[in-house]
Amino acid sequence: MHMTSSSPSEPRIQLAHGGGGSLSQQLIRELIVPAFGPADGVLHDAALLPCPGGRLAFTTDSYVVRPLIFPGGDIGRLAVIGSINDLAMAGAEPLALSLGLILEEGLPIASLERVLASIRREASACGVAVVTGDTKVVERGKGDGIFINTAAIGQVSHELTIGPAAVRPGDAVLVSGDLGRHGVAILAAREELGFRTPLESDLAPLLEPVRALLGAGLELHCLRDLTRGGLASALQEIAGAAGVRLELEEAAIPIAPAVQAACNLLGLDPLTMANEGRLTLLLPQEQAGAALAVLRRFDAAAAQIGIARELTADTAAGRELRAEAGPGRSLFGLSRPPVSLRNGLGVSRPLDPGRGEHLPRIC
Amino acid sequence: MHMTSSSPSEPRIQLAHGGGGSLSQQLIRELIVPAFGPADGVLHDAALLPCPGGRLAFTTDSYVVRPLIFPGGDIGRLAVIGSINDLAMAGAEPLALSLGLILEEGLPIASLERVLASIRREASACGVAVVTGDTKVVERGKGDGIFINTAAIGQVSHELTIGPAAVRPGDAVLVSGDLGRHGVAILAAREELGFRTPLESDLAPLLEPVRALLGAGLELHCLRDLTRGGLASALQEIAGAAGVRLELEEAAIPIAPAVQAACNLLGLDPLTMANEGRLTLLLPQEQAGAALAVLRRFDAAAAQIGIARELTADTAAGRELRAEAGPGRSLFGLSRPPVSLRNGLGVSRPLDPGRGEHLPRIC
Repeated sequence: MHMTSSSPSEPRIQLAHGGGGSLSQQLIRELIVPAFGPADGVLHDAALLPCPGGRLAFTTDSYVVRPLIFPGGDIGRLAVIGSINDLAMAGAEPLALSLGLILEEGLPIASLERVLASIRREASACGVAVVTGDTKVVERGKGDGIFINTAAIGQVSHELTIGPAAVRPGDAVLVSGDLGRHGVAILAAREELGFRTPLESDLAPLLEPVRALLGAGLELHCLRDLTRGGLASALQEIAGAAGVRLELEEAAIPIAPAVQAACNLLGLDPLTMANEGRLTLLLPQEQAGAALAVLRRFDAAAAQIGIARELTADTAAGRELRAEAGPGRSLFGLSRPPVSLRNGLGVSRPLDPGRGEHLPRIC
Repeated sequence: MHMTSSSPSEPRIQLAHGGGGSLSQQLIRELIVPAFGPADGVLHDAALLPCPGGRLAFTTDSYVVRPLIFPGGDIGRLAVIGSINDLAMAGAEPLALSLGLILEEGLPIASLERVLASIRREASACGVAVVTGDTKVVERGKGDGIFINTAAIGQVSHELTIGPAAVRPGDAVLVSGDLGRHGVAILAAREELGFRTPLESDLAPLLEPVRALLGAGLELHCLRDLTRGGLASALQEIAGAAGVRLELEEAAIPIAPAVQAACNLLGLDPLTMANEGRLTLLLPQEQAGAALAVLRRFDAAAAQIGIARELTADTAAGRELRAEAGPGRSLFGLSRPPVSLRNGLGVSRPLDPGRGEHLPRIC
């Protein structure tokens, strides 16, 4: 904590620790999980609390997105939707929202007013109220305009166990729409990158699609919103926690041409790009058609993109080898990775979540 | 939100907006309350939610204290105790804690490890678990080491309505210990101020004293922890929301000599200094002795410092005059202020919460 007296060679936080890729996962695995030791070794976006009146879901996220306004949204809307979507992924109905603001000295009051109006509007649209809050101010140059934290409480009325532990070999892997729009919209809004795209962020609450899925009586095994780190990071985590292998068909994954073009230009993989209004759903293959029919009422691009397979001894050994090899060494060819992409020629390659260094401050 | 294009003369966030004085209160009154409109016009530290199994308390705070380690604590311990104490002020038992980290690029990993260990230790001591969390990273120079947000959920088992609305003329005003230690310890730890004191922060959880007060069957009207803005700010808010006048006896307010000496040196009022382990309690005068006996089991310095009086027409008119006069214009002599201090000679003066500009980043 004595930052000035520490040696220059000691390990330090890097931007990639916040990028949602492998370095973020490593930080969580090596520091956060050991400190707070969740029983199942997995930190859930929303924790479930047994309470006298039923289960509660509880979640938190901080928002440091840059710029504060981007095509399709702003930091205030994002801060409401982000936490509401974490509740939705537990199948929970929002009960209350908290709001923590860290403001930088010199921020125009008018900017704060606009962000607060945006928060109020979106919370109201989601049918939830901001019931408690806190405001701190830091010196100029010790913050960046506005940082927001929201925490949300939700009520869980269904009886399902939704999470990686419920995933079974044979489950279908679905996505609720095309991928990568939020990440591309944010990068395009950063003027220094010097490219433009007509794309808007996909930022949107996922309450309604999840309500419809629950209402249809489907056996939802796992729901995950595809935020920081995108599809790649989410599926890597799910496969690891579920102890399954996920086989994806590359051609089935919906990517808008403008997103693909922007990613080609920047040398980025759209499957690692953040989304703020997209989810992946795993459920029994025989219910995939019914689930897709529900999801397509909200977005025609919803699709089945793959299937869960048993984690064979060969694959498990491969994962250990990969861990020994460390990041950066591909073991493609040695073993089947936990998440693989098959192209049109039937050739598979591992899905790489990346380290995350190219995508700071995306949410 | 376009910070660069805004005119230099437009109103901007100042450090004092976060200092807990009148400017903080103005920001909350003029921006936050209109945006989120709590029914009673008062933003509570912990919101109470009606739930199927009973009432829940929900609270949030961000922590930006500088330095990260200070005599008597560190930012991690503070982040746990701060939110737990907000629950305690509602008479709630902690159920779960969330943890949002905003890390600055370049922070030594070892510093993060120490803060996490401190959080884990204190949460465990308070009997609560961190169940959900989030980590963001911002570029060097866009943050300041570590900012922490915690939100907490608590269970309310008592039947009391604790808050300013329950305060009645005739209520005794108590404090649980001597005041101002946290603020002085933080200021002394800032090397640029060039003064030293052996004082440690009073940082401590208030769960046990509140449990004991509830266990004694006392009719607790209002509980408030005396954080940012200190006693002055807390009592000003309580008096305003309760519609009473609070008369304090200056000589009865416990201040350690070292705190008084440091405040004299810096030209600060100990009654506006932050505390992180002190509360004020208002309850019927006939129960003051029993309540003091309970509080003194935890701290011998607990004391009755004043009494609530009816807000006379004269006082109410005076408050309107004060509002018209605006900050900086004293109306002493014109009317009785909502909170007054009487000295040993029987002369009263208004208790001034200050604007807050001298005390940034205190919590």
